Amino acid sequence: MSSQQITPSILPGFMELLPREQLVFNKMLATVKESFELYGCIPMDTPIIEKAEILNAKGGEESEKQLYAFKKGDNDLALRFDLTVPLARYVAQHFNDIHFPFRRYQIGKVYRGEKPQKGRFREFYQCDVDVIGNEKLDLFHDSEVLAVIDQTFTKLGIGKFLIKINNRKILTGFIQELNLASKSKEFLRAIDKLDKLGLEKVRLELDQLGLKKEQIQIVEQLVNIQGDPQSVLSQLEYLSVRNDTFVTGLAELAEVTKHIQKLNVPKDNWTIDLKIARGLDYYTGTVYETFLTEHIDIGSICSGGRYEDLANYFTERKLPGVGISIGLTRLFDQLLDLGIVEGKNYTPSKVLIVPVEDTLDYCLNYANLLRSKNIACEVYNDSSTSMRKKLDYANKINVPYVAIIGENEIKDDSVTIKNMTSGEQSTLSFVKSLELI
Amino acid sequence: MSSQQITPSILPGFMELLPREQLVFNKMLATVKESFELYGCIPMDTPIIEKAEILNAKGGEESEKQLYAFKKGDNDLALRFDLTVPLARYVAQHFNDIHFPFRRYQIGKVYRGEKPQKGRFREFYQCDVDVIGNEKLDLFHDSEVLAVIDQTFTKLGIGKFLIKINNRKILTGFIQELNLASKSKEFLRAIDKLDKLGLEKVRLELDQLGLKKEQIQIVEQLVNIQGDPQSVLSQLEYLSVRNDTFVTGLAELAEVTKHIQKLNVPKDNWTIDLKIARGLDYYTGTVYETFLTEHIDIGSICSGGRYEDLANYFTERKLPGVGISIGLTRLFDQLLDLGIVEGKNYTPSKVLIVPVEDTLDYCLNYANLLRSKNIACEVYNDSSTSMRKKLDYANKINVPYVAIIGENEIKDDSVTIKNMTSGEQSTLSFVKSLELI
Repeated sequence: MSSQQITPSILPGFMELLPREQLVFNKMLATVKESFELYGCIPMDTPIIEKAEILNAKGGEESEKQLYAFKKGDNDLALRFDLTVPLARYVAQHFNDIHFPFRRYQIGKVYRGEKPQKGRFREFYQCDVDVIGNEKLDLFHDSEVLAVIDQTFTKLGIGKFLIKINNRKILTGFIQELNLASKSKEFLRAIDKLDKLGLEKVRLELDQLGLKKEQIQIVEQLVNIQGDPQSVLSQLEYLSVRNDTFVTGLAELAEVTKHIQKLNVPKDNWTIDLKIARGLDYYTGTVYETFLTEHIDIGSICSGGRYEDLANYFTERKLPGVGISIGLTRLFDQLLDLGIVEGKNYTPSKVLIVPVEDTLDYCLNYANLLRSKNIACEVYNDSSTSMRKKLDYANKINVPYVAIIGENEIKDDSVTIKNMTSGEQSTLSFVKSLELI
Repeated sequence: MSSQQITPSILPGFMELLPREQLVFNKMLATVKESFELYGCIPMDTPIIEKAEILNAKGGEESEKQLYAFKKGDNDLALRFDLTVPLARYVAQHFNDIHFPFRRYQIGKVYRGEKPQKGRFREFYQCDVDVIGNEKLDLFHDSEVLAVIDQTFTKLGIGKFLIKINNRKILTGFIQELNLASKSKEFLRAIDKLDKLGLEKVRLELDQLGLKKEQIQIVEQLVNIQGDPQSVLSQLEYLSVRNDTFVTGLAELAEVTKHIQKLNVPKDNWTIDLKIARGLDYYTGTVYETFLTEHIDIGSICSGGRYEDLANYFTERKLPGVGISIGLTRLFDQLLDLGIVEGKNYTPSKVLIVPVEDTLDYCLNYANLLRSKNIACEVYNDSSTSMRKKLDYANKINVPYVAIIGENEIKDDSVTIKNMTSGEQSTLSFVKSLELI
């Protein structure tokens, strides 16, 4: 026994799950993976530690403050804060070994030294899909990425969702048309806050940006255009904005919309929403945000968009791309809170095999058979533990079936299977029991 | 274009794979996971960053030197260097929410600031299985863990392997019998080096420990006992060593051996080897090491054993356990070098769909169909890329099938499938094509 014991605990802002929840979380991870791969996305796994200069390449005070940076020997290191910078570094570094369009996904932990608070994590899983082109990337991929979002959330089965799509060029073109091109960035950021801050506050921001009352009204009219995709597109056409950027944005949105429909994304799962602007300057065309229809308040659960140039800090090659990211740790935490997902099974075992008295050998035959049929099981062998305690354990681990093997079962060459949900119990041959499980 | 470009690179000692190898590696990870779960092992996922005091609890100069430790705010943090300390912390911390015996597995990255050299990694995957008891743990689990090793390497299909098993009590009991109990640790470490250093050097070490020539001879006789399990056990009995520890060790080994046989572990896959001692003081009973029969020189690919007390730094509860660990990153690197595994497919896509001219819509119908049947596919839509280039891409990504859809196919309501391995090409209906793929 150690005299100096340390209280076992983890750092705040880190998620650690108990088995029941872990199994649900892992199931979600597997679903996301499967869904991404169905679209031919290639798995990527980059180091969690990168050279600090790589992660700082893009700069940005906020991200530097949040960075887990440290020295080891003479090296300045840091933990990745997203999967996009590693992707940029990877594509630039391995350019000659990659074939374009490069569709990759990465599911992994990232680190941000945020102030820990409910729903904010310092270590969290991101699940990213990006398609990267060499010099050019067909617009078709913008539709495809939306289809990936649709399929992923359909398979996850966490309730109704709505993918909102827009094209930033429509907004930037519009502000150019108003002769306010220099305020373009601020304008987009203000629009992006509409859903969060409400109309009044954004009006104030636009006013501060120098938009006149009438201009603010026109902007309001623009972003409030609603309806099915065809109707939104018609209304946008009807505005007769001549600005090149606007016209390009509208044409892109029309094309992306067309292919989304052909990709069988159900009408109810997506919509054009001109209020979607995304805060990041990075995005240059299509942008996406995704909401749980019945829980809008938890915010976007999957966002992304099209960008002109992935890796300009690492290479002179122009690498346009389009991608999305799901912050799965935060989402999972919210789903747990909302009761949309809940821990069920404590174990992957489908069967707990319990020897009564000295029947272990026979039990092992049964375990071997189940495993050969890919049925996960475990044997509870401990002669010093009472039968009652063993069944108690079975209840605690919430195993679907208990297989009891005593002298009687051996005599009859059988096994007694107890369905732990229904309580039903029946004694049958090994082979027959497989039909039950 | 950024004026200050940074050379994209990663730190030495970190493994980053290209898509072909990544797909093989991921397949191995999935096989390990599946194999562990078939034995009812519960997945665990702990933070990669732990409080430094947790990781330093056990001390050990070597591990402290290798630790990636740093500060963030006022907190002393460090990256986990194995999955065992996090397991100990987890079980102590969540004791009341865990049911025993607690069989868990964890697959995750760990960090050691080793001098980077061929085959040594600073970031690597460990795949661990441990079964932890509360106060006691039935010896049966020692057999079960060996069966998990056997099943995992059988499923991995990386060639013939041999799991060597021993019980440390036999060695410590034997050294007690020679009245050299005080040298027990050093003795075990010397024996552990037999396969690496050879007999001559170990003889010298034993000599320096104070063993007389005759004693060294007896030790040599002991560790050289060979044969099938029953024969080894008989030879050990025949030595008539009375020492309690030895007798217990022998009885344990006999029992573990018996259940291994009942668990259908093929005779050729395991053996008792009295030279297996393991370097770590941690182990107290059964110990395992695993070798690729045709590549003994790469060393043990899966090791572990029984320990008395998992978490004495974190709790007063006695938590005995038995477990094993596979260092998958290193193993994979070696398997690549040996040509035992090799990168094959560059993509999870089974079909690349290529529209000829303006047939995208029709292609998307086909893509929708394939995905609804869980067949991974991708559409290469880019009217500015020539057909030749698209087929070139198909060859590069090594996709098994290419589906070509032009005006003719649309007319006949069909698709032309090219088998990229055989070069065969046939035009058939959508539904018929599914039989081919």
